[in-house]
Amino acid sequence: MRAVDIIVKKRDGGELTPEEIEFFVQGFTRGEIPDYQVAAWAMAVYWRGMTDAETTALTLAMARSGEMLDLHEVAPFVVDKHSTGGVGDKTTLVVGPVVASLGVPVGKMSGRGLSFSGGTLDKLESISGWRASLTITEFKEQLRTVGLVIAGQTADLAPADGKLYALRDVTGTVPSLPLIASSIMSKKIAGGADGIVLDVKTGRGAFMEEETDAVRLADLMLRIGRSLGRRMAAVISDMSQPLGRAVGNALEVREALETLCGAGPPDFREHSIIVAGEMLRLAEIARDEEEGRRLAQGALDSGRALDKFRQFVAAQGGDPRQIDDPDLLPRARWVEPLLSSRSGYLAAIDAREVGLAMLDLGGGRAKKGDPIDHAVGVVLSAKVGDWVERDQPLLVIHANDAVRLQEARARLLRAYAWRERPISPPRLIRQVLR
Amino acid sequence: MRAVDIIVKKRDGGELTPEEIEFFVQGFTRGEIPDYQVAAWAMAVYWRGMTDAETTALTLAMARSGEMLDLHEVAPFVVDKHSTGGVGDKTTLVVGPVVASLGVPVGKMSGRGLSFSGGTLDKLESISGWRASLTITEFKEQLRTVGLVIAGQTADLAPADGKLYALRDVTGTVPSLPLIASSIMSKKIAGGADGIVLDVKTGRGAFMEEETDAVRLADLMLRIGRSLGRRMAAVISDMSQPLGRAVGNALEVREALETLCGAGPPDFREHSIIVAGEMLRLAEIARDEEEGRRLAQGALDSGRALDKFRQFVAAQGGDPRQIDDPDLLPRARWVEPLLSSRSGYLAAIDAREVGLAMLDLGGGRAKKGDPIDHAVGVVLSAKVGDWVERDQPLLVIHANDAVRLQEARARLLRAYAWRERPISPPRLIRQVLR
Repeated sequence: MRAVDIIVKKRDGGELTPEEIEFFVQGFTRGEIPDYQVAAWAMAVYWRGMTDAETTALTLAMARSGEMLDLHEVAPFVVDKHSTGGVGDKTTLVVGPVVASLGVPVGKMSGRGLSFSGGTLDKLESISGWRASLTITEFKEQLRTVGLVIAGQTADLAPADGKLYALRDVTGTVPSLPLIASSIMSKKIAGGADGIVLDVKTGRGAFMEEETDAVRLADLMLRIGRSLGRRMAAVISDMSQPLGRAVGNALEVREALETLCGAGPPDFREHSIIVAGEMLRLAEIARDEEEGRRLAQGALDSGRALDKFRQFVAAQGGDPRQIDDPDLLPRARWVEPLLSSRSGYLAAIDAREVGLAMLDLGGGRAKKGDPIDHAVGVVLSAKVGDWVERDQPLLVIHANDAVRLQEARARLLRAYAWRERPISPPRLIRQVLR
Repeated sequence: MRAVDIIVKKRDGGELTPEEIEFFVQGFTRGEIPDYQVAAWAMAVYWRGMTDAETTALTLAMARSGEMLDLHEVAPFVVDKHSTGGVGDKTTLVVGPVVASLGVPVGKMSGRGLSFSGGTLDKLESISGWRASLTITEFKEQLRTVGLVIAGQTADLAPADGKLYALRDVTGTVPSLPLIASSIMSKKIAGGADGIVLDVKTGRGAFMEEETDAVRLADLMLRIGRSLGRRMAAVISDMSQPLGRAVGNALEVREALETLCGAGPPDFREHSIIVAGEMLRLAEIARDEEEGRRLAQGALDSGRALDKFRQFVAAQGGDPRQIDDPDLLPRARWVEPLLSSRSGYLAAIDAREVGLAMLDLGGGRAKKGDPIDHAVGVVLSAKVGDWVERDQPLLVIHANDAVRLQEARARLLRAYAWRERPISPPRLIRQVLR
């Protein structure tokens, strides 16, 4: 088998066999197939697409390129969720404890934020002492004892995916549906999940701006997961405006804590209940959507999910006093409102611009490895559909630098649109694919 | 400017500006743009194609990536020819001396054979002492004094093309019309030619098997050349069967010498006259096709072209006695006929298979740098359209190894097809594009 023949076959629209894909991925992982051949192949895939069988084979080959975590020695059925990323998306901080408090182990390897999109690890690191870095032994032990563990990539999961993604990033081959789907799914498969709930965002603050693209991606990942024997569900949800009200690492932890106390912004609470409900359904703790919803609500309103969160934070070295008194979380020097320049119904709060304002404030990363400021961010005072009076606050900015505060203020104003007549807020949950 | 943006623009079907192409080619040549980005770009070009303006900019950028030869200090108008390669194509050995003997300087950098296709330098190296390697000073001096020089790549011409070709070869991006055209033309432009006659082959023994593809390639190269101020013409000629009768290095030199003496196979003589005529027309020595033909015939029939060839060979260290007595050229140990297995009209002599039989005999190269045997090859006894009796020779094999002889014999038999009814030979000159 020769790499060039595999490139030519894909270039000419042929369907690669699982053996050809395995050969290609293994060769690339071992450094035997050079970057330039993989780059030409990725462009041919971008052009010609892949069948489900090819995408599944690619997912499996990438999953197998490194360690394949087996968590069954500590948990009979492990459920995971994956968000395609967004602004104000602190869902994992709520659904993890909800599901774990109901007896379903959640062992999750999470990522960090990049560009306008935040990351779960960055949010959790707002809690002093909390550490993302665990050994596999620690990971498994905590999964067994606490039932909830969220860590940075502990094992060498799907190294082929990391290598391929880095190459796609510089060769114009990122926005390819089969390559995106196999990238996400390969890590989930290698991570040992038995059930996976995909939280696929759509709208200006999502990587898939169009709902039809989000549904196509979700559908494809469902098919891949199922053909690899996983239980799957997908929630397609709105990311045209930020999820909830808080955007910023410590601010989002605080909002998650409010939600874990049975309160919190209604949209974020609803979103968390839907995602958690699907996880419970996959784990067969809930028979249907209704029971999933009821159980999730109960875990929030009873304080059981909060207890689980406190236990989880402490297990990973975090200070539990910050859980009980969120005022102890990092706080910014300036807390200033952004006032509405006119009266009207809010027609848009561009999630992407709000995410970029986070970057301006120092709360996000322009590139991997940049340091971040956990205290900064914004808290929305109103959401799309709400009536705001002129000079009433649109949001409150938390900043540690006066110049950056002004930059963010200018950008944030541009994120808003008003209308004179009432407008319905965007539907939060667009579809649930089961 | 960023390489990835140029890839994305081409991926999405955009037209690259000359500045973007220059940036990309320069970056690649200097090693600043890595292979993997160029590979992804080449696949995007394969997919999306290029406009004439883009192809011209690419040609010029690659030509400028190394030395740009200026021959005007030694010759006011330099004419060059380029063949896309074929089997039995010894045209340069005849048209070079014909044109030079009529006072038009021919300074040509030639290549070596690869796969089923022969190379001019290999053929000339059948002549003992003849050397392909000249300095630029020697090249120019011989162009001035003899008016004819054929050498290996003397200057560092279009290094970007060499680098890009090597990459295309292993990334499935060779058969792209704009990449083929710019590859050929960049070397011709850098080589200092004022007038260029393209000899584009079509048929089984050519890289462009279909005539429509050959015409498209020729047309594109004419447009590129003209937009860069060169005088251009193209001959589209048949390569379904070998050109002339001899295939093999020394055997082809012998056939060229016969042709330079005013004899030689009619098809090869005709082809040489047409190509030489076009070169003379471009140099404004001939006013039209008819005068070009008449002048070329005169140079062959008068012996003036042969005199020029002898002078050229001697100038590059070759033994002129071999010119006057071709029996002194390398000769093979076995000279055996291949007999026809039936009677009939010859319907096909697959040029590619004949070329591959040359490889079997050791007279060609499977890969760059392989040594070759100058003595071996075949001489056709009949051509397509001729009547052959059973057990009459189809061709004569010249071999130095008994095992290889049998391999070649088996392959050669498969190259033939017969018909019971008369068949017209394929038209040699398909089109002349002016």
